[in-house]
Amino acid sequence: MQDLTLVMAQLDPMVGDIAGNTAAAIEAVREARIEHDADVVVFSELFLTGYPPEDLLLREAMESRLQDALTEMARKIGKVAPETLVVVGYPGMRHGERCNLAGVLLGGEWRGEYAKQALPNYQVFDEDRYFEPGSEPLVIEHRGARFGILICEDLWDGAPVRQSSEAGADILVTLNASPFHLDKPAERERLFAGRAREVDKPLVYVNAIGGQDELVFDGGSLVLDAAGEVAVRAPFWQVGLMPVRFTREAGNWKPQPGEREPLLGAEENLYCALVTGLRDYVNKSGFKGVVMGLSGGIDSSLSLAIAVDALGPDRVHAVMMPYHYTAEISQADAAEQAKMLGVGYEVMPIAPMVEAFTETLAESFSELAADTTEENLQSRVRGVLLMAISNKKGLMVQTTGNKSEMAVGYATLYGDMVGGYNALKDVYKTWVYRLANWRNAQEPAIPERVITRPPSAELAPDQQDSDSLPGYDVLDAILERYIEGDMSAESIIEAGFERDDVYQVVKLVDRNEYKRRQAPVGVRVTLRGFGRDRRYPIVNGWQPGS
Amino acid sequence: MQDLTLVMAQLDPMVGDIAGNTAAAIEAVREARIEHDADVVVFSELFLTGYPPEDLLLREAMESRLQDALTEMARKIGKVAPETLVVVGYPGMRHGERCNLAGVLLGGEWRGEYAKQALPNYQVFDEDRYFEPGSEPLVIEHRGARFGILICEDLWDGAPVRQSSEAGADILVTLNASPFHLDKPAERERLFAGRAREVDKPLVYVNAIGGQDELVFDGGSLVLDAAGEVAVRAPFWQVGLMPVRFTREAGNWKPQPGEREPLLGAEENLYCALVTGLRDYVNKSGFKGVVMGLSGGIDSSLSLAIAVDALGPDRVHAVMMPYHYTAEISQADAAEQAKMLGVGYEVMPIAPMVEAFTETLAESFSELAADTTEENLQSRVRGVLLMAISNKKGLMVQTTGNKSEMAVGYATLYGDMVGGYNALKDVYKTWVYRLANWRNAQEPAIPERVITRPPSAELAPDQQDSDSLPGYDVLDAILERYIEGDMSAESIIEAGFERDDVYQVVKLVDRNEYKRRQAPVGVRVTLRGFGRDRRYPIVNGWQPGS
Repeated sequence: MQDLTLVMAQLDPMVGDIAGNTAAAIEAVREARIEHDADVVVFSELFLTGYPPEDLLLREAMESRLQDALTEMARKIGKVAPETLVVVGYPGMRHGERCNLAGVLLGGEWRGEYAKQALPNYQVFDEDRYFEPGSEPLVIEHRGARFGILICEDLWDGAPVRQSSEAGADILVTLNASPFHLDKPAERERLFAGRAREVDKPLVYVNAIGGQDELVFDGGSLVLDAAGEVAVRAPFWQVGLMPVRFTREAGNWKPQPGEREPLLGAEENLYCALVTGLRDYVNKSGFKGVVMGLSGGIDSSLSLAIAVDALGPDRVHAVMMPYHYTAEISQADAAEQAKMLGVGYEVMPIAPMVEAFTETLAESFSELAADTTEENLQSRVRGVLLMAISNKKGLMVQTTGNKSEMAVGYATLYGDMVGGYNALKDVYKTWVYRLANWRNAQEPAIPERVITRPPSAELAPDQQDSDSLPGYDVLDAILERYIEGDMSAESIIEAGFERDDVYQVVKLVDRNEYKRRQAPVGVRVTLRGFGRDRRYPIVNGWQPGS
Repeated sequence: MQDLTLVMAQLDPMVGDIAGNTAAAIEAVREARIEHDADVVVFSELFLTGYPPEDLLLREAMESRLQDALTEMARKIGKVAPETLVVVGYPGMRHGERCNLAGVLLGGEWRGEYAKQALPNYQVFDEDRYFEPGSEPLVIEHRGARFGILICEDLWDGAPVRQSSEAGADILVTLNASPFHLDKPAERERLFAGRAREVDKPLVYVNAIGGQDELVFDGGSLVLDAAGEVAVRAPFWQVGLMPVRFTREAGNWKPQPGEREPLLGAEENLYCALVTGLRDYVNKSGFKGVVMGLSGGIDSSLSLAIAVDALGPDRVHAVMMPYHYTAEISQADAAEQAKMLGVGYEVMPIAPMVEAFTETLAESFSELAADTTEENLQSRVRGVLLMAISNKKGLMVQTTGNKSEMAVGYATLYGDMVGGYNALKDVYKTWVYRLANWRNAQEPAIPERVITRPPSAELAPDQQDSDSLPGYDVLDAILERYIEGDMSAESIIEAGFERDDVYQVVKLVDRNEYKRRQAPVGVRVTLRGFGRDRRYPIVNGWQPGS
């Protein structure tokens, strides 16, 4: 009986840091050899540059840096693991065209390169901007097994899978950088099982881990047998090397059942995505920690819990900035949560600044009635305070607005939108509640009253969010249909929503693109996030209707 | 002798406003018929949606709205100009795939559709995100002439030009939405002349006009004869209908020489681009006008002149917001310019707000030295004042930072970067001076002392920009090589720049992507602007070097 060990290297590369990623790859191969006697080590897509490298791909020095990296990998891995087949992703030039490649290294020599054939150029993807598609399969034999190399979208497309199988692959090995969204893990397994069955071959799926600007990768690398059953599933949201044993029986290579980490529930999965996204953004950017405004409301409370889970309480600083409209219970709840979680906490009343602005503007505004200008002023004073603390102490301001608010523009530009990163950017308000409840069920992190009291921006006396917006259950249901479903206003009404609500919401979404364009990044977790995933004109004459 | 009149409709569609653009097209055909006896009317690329419609193309209702528009055009134009051949651009479905189309209308019926073959997906373009390429030529005969229809990139690519010629075209008719950059008009004419000569056919180039977010279209529609000579050149930066007469001689159709508007000098061209971009952004967004901070420095002075030229003085409001470091001459020059140009002008000293913030933050900052935090605070107080005026009076804040500053992050996020639109966003500081001098040479608009004194942000005592940055001539030369040329730091040093300067600048550019990501839009006028033209990761481990 023949057998071999394949190790899936589920790691978190840093975009642009080719030297660092190369060193991590070499170290991972060494460890896979020592710990697991690896015959094959597989990395994720574009591992050496990180994913997505965006316009760094156009830099003059990119190609020579990658050539240096490949030379170094061959030299060093050739010494520490000369009999291990290594498959790693990187961009490179083939016949004068840039391709998304998977290189195969053995015994100190690069033995082949596969060029990705199916290039995604929709949703968050821009691969046609950078790459030309390959057309040929690559099947590499090692230890008696023929490995058919494929990259990410090739698997979704399907044709390259059949091509690789027809070219004689025994085991399909796929390198991936598959951005997370909420339904993706289950969707992925269904699709991959179908592919494995279609060609009657086992399939190895190696995914990346970690956050990169607005994308986050969830890991969950997989090995499926030829019947589409999961033999091995690596953990989600965790880097590591995951070995799988293949044995040859009756001429076919079969993966031996190994560790199968469970699929996560929706709330846990989403919460982990937000924690991972924030942690990587802060750490990879080199910030000491974060500072955030804590209002006693649910968004900032959940954001604080996420920050503490991502960075630890010592790296999180909260500031309560009360004004006349801030309820006593808001101040009490904010203080209580800060104490619960053990974070730094300051109180800075904003009245002196608001008054100074109001006096300065009095003459210019003398004949004009009070309106949202005065509300925005409070919010902006808070933004200026947070930015001053950020500048002085090297802490990144964490923004706390949710997707429902960002969608309808219920947020103040340069006020509560101030910040480097927004963990809740792609989280609807109804999901904010679900996450808060889920998090508290693990271990209390948010005072219950914050969750149960009616939401208010507290920018005017007795203000409640429901004064100016439909209830969040209705709002989110309309938003999901409009943003993720691209449904027209009339179609949403036909689906059972009130005409006035639908038109109000849809108009607000269209009108507030200018705010979203200046919003901080945050991780995308739905089928369509605001950012590279939804590219809308600011100047826009589109009118809602049928 | 046969002859015919073709009218180039060089218009400014509104993105998303299909009904409005359709009405404008119908009216243009009617006018072309009445005023010029047009036999053929040609519009620009994607005229009915405006260019670029971005993800509006994915909306459920897009296809049905366009079908309604095409039906209405056929019905109405069929009545007012039944013998006029109309060629207009719009997106549409062909065999289940979305294509970038040019439809041909005659006698109330749509006679054919051409699908763009060459889809640009680089620089500012994302056409692969939306469109599938066509493969077939379209040659339509009318009044004895065979018109070969092509769209924009087809002309740059070349192959579709040859294909159309081989399919029997007498006259090449191209629909374009060709975003402006500084060297484009001359580059365009050289290339088109080559194409005309290559196939020995006259060529009609109809371009759009106007600003759309970060793109601006300059018009300058053209007719070249088969020898590549310009027969007719429409004005730049101006909407209108431009007729050209074709006659058939010895079997060949020749354009008769007509109006040939001159190519503009670089300064004038760039200045017009900035004025057009700002005007369209403000007007198409429905703002009453703009408000801006006037500092007595060159950037805000030039921005004020642009605003007045774009909108007229009555729609422009300037605010001087002095602090302890604001020089007397800055205040005098700001007041003088406001008077020169006849704009609204207010003075709002910022000391009361700065002091209120300083006192509030004193305890938190008690052990920490003064640094740029205090400078940013001044800038942010100004931002809050401008936004309050904006909110209260319905004026858009016009931001005034130039490209050199945005590149190296010499700007305060939520401070002087506050605003809806930045006319100078893609204008290097050295060009700011060139434009100021050019504008003053037409008619004085900027006090001379503003141009001649050394630039300073005036955020600290006796501060000058040159304290922390290389001189602007050196800075801009490095930036151009790094940003537009994608040159590495070492290559720039080899080209003759100081090592320290190059590394300082390059690191600053890389490090400040986060600021640019939250910056207002502004028109792109160079070969690579910040925005959709340069897509960089914020979290970025790329290190400068060779």
